Amino acid sequence: MPTSPPELLSRILRSNTDSPAPSTRPHVTLTFAQSLDARIAGAGGRQLILSGRESMVMTHWMRTMHDGILVGIGTALNDDPQLNVRQLPPPPADSPYSLPRPIIIDPQLQLSPSCKLLKNYQSKTGRMPWVLCREHPDPDAGTASRKQALQAAGARVVEVPHTGSETLPTRLQVEAVLQILRDLGIKSLMVEGGARVITSFLSEDVVDTLIITVAPVMVGDTGIGYQYPTAVDGRPRFKDPQTEIVGQDSVVCLLANKP
Amino acid sequence: MPTSPPELLSRILRSNTDSPAPSTRPHVTLTFAQSLDARIAGAGGRQLILSGRESMVMTHWMRTMHDGILVGIGTALNDDPQLNVRQLPPPPADSPYSLPRPIIIDPQLQLSPSCKLLKNYQSKTGRMPWVLCREHPDPDAGTASRKQALQAAGARVVEVPHTGSETLPTRLQVEAVLQILRDLGIKSLMVEGGARVITSFLSEDVVDTLIITVAPVMVGDTGIGYQYPTAVDGRPRFKDPQTEIVGQDSVVCLLANKP
Repeated sequence: MPTSPPELLSRILRSNTDSPAPSTRPHVTLTFAQSLDARIAGAGGRQLILSGRESMVMTHWMRTMHDGILVGIGTALNDDPQLNVRQLPPPPADSPYSLPRPIIIDPQLQLSPSCKLLKNYQSKTGRMPWVLCREHPDPDAGTASRKQALQAAGARVVEVPHTGSETLPTRLQVEAVLQILRDLGIKSLMVEGGARVITSFLSEDVVDTLIITVAPVMVGDTGIGYQYPTAVDGRPRFKDPQTEIVGQDSVVCLLANKP
Repeated sequence: MPTSPPELLSRILRSNTDSPAPSTRPHVTLTFAQSLDARIAGAGGRQLILSGRESMVMTHWMRTMHDGILVGIGTALNDDPQLNVRQLPPPPADSPYSLPRPIIIDPQLQLSPSCKLLKNYQSKTGRMPWVLCREHPDPDAGTASRKQALQAAGARVVEVPHTGSETLPTRLQVEAVLQILRDLGIKSLMVEGGARVITSFLSEDVVDTLIITVAPVMVGDTGIGYQYPTAVDGRPRFKDPQTEIVGQDSVVCLLANKP
């Protein structure tokens, strides 16, 4: 197995290294695996292993090419993911793979203090996870205790300010999340899911690179999909498709079609 | 351009030629083009040209490998399709491409007598279209007149019997359609759409070969998709995926996973 990322990824993600990140947000790569019928999870959000081993390895290479990996709390609770690069061969001593920062969007601090991300941090096999929650200027006892438990388990809890009144208590504003991550030094962010996070990022037009692994299976109508809002101006929001077959999957890479 | 079908198609559709069709139905190939987000048409069923020229040519090759091509009345009205093989190079004199029979599922006889399918038949550039409608034992004046107009324009109108009371007047039973087509000599049927027909065929478990062209675009939530019922027994209904990149599209071929 090679000890550097596939050429496709290096080509597609070149802007992450070649151009500086804007001051308001990191470079954003949105990536996920889906079935032919555009489902990303089973009934009730149950984890489905859709992509084959080869594209899983590709995803792990992709992780080494970003400062942070972001998932939503739904994925964190359903999948208990590790967000590391364990599928890759041992790194060469002179250039170890960079291990990305796990970031969880968790407005109400529902993450379990015994999740794998925190266990890996405790055992020094993973980086300190950042848990992004909504502002709690006057937290109730439950919130304060959950926050304390997460911090005691090793998480860094970051409160994300919100503006306006439209924000639901169960959501964070994508722009605010990106600004705070940029301020904290994240220049390139890989967003992995789940459905709500994918939908939010696609709706906000903040995705620089979209990489979708299409597995040759049908999941069916009980599965969970994402929403992609049709562009009102008719201009496609992505361009320059590049597709490669990886194992049994098709990996489709698209770049933002900026005005 | 080659004068015979791509190797992938010959391999995938081998059963059409190598094994006899069952007595109750033709070999069925369901094929359509979709976006990454599994949409096959725009808002209100508006036609979208999703696939590139290369996969369009592939679709026309596929047409030469079937006795009949079936579409629903929605597609016939929205797209006014020709269902011929005009993208192919002129056929060699010794083995002209077979031109498939156009078949329209049209329960209420809504097809226009001036549609391209009938014009092509009148100008001897297309085969006589078959229009499959529901049984009209005692037709009203409107139905009788539409039937007469279609027949005058060259269509063969075939009434499909239905059993039971659950059949909606706007649907035909897939099994009855397949039986009647088989009785009329159709041994291999290519089903092209649209959404309702795709959904019906996927629901009835009568698809031998599923060939999906995935175009590297996102259409969005105003687009029309199909429904794929999740298998209740958990057994995947398709197997043996073979994927090829054709132009910018991924063409995914799957075979029925019979018990």
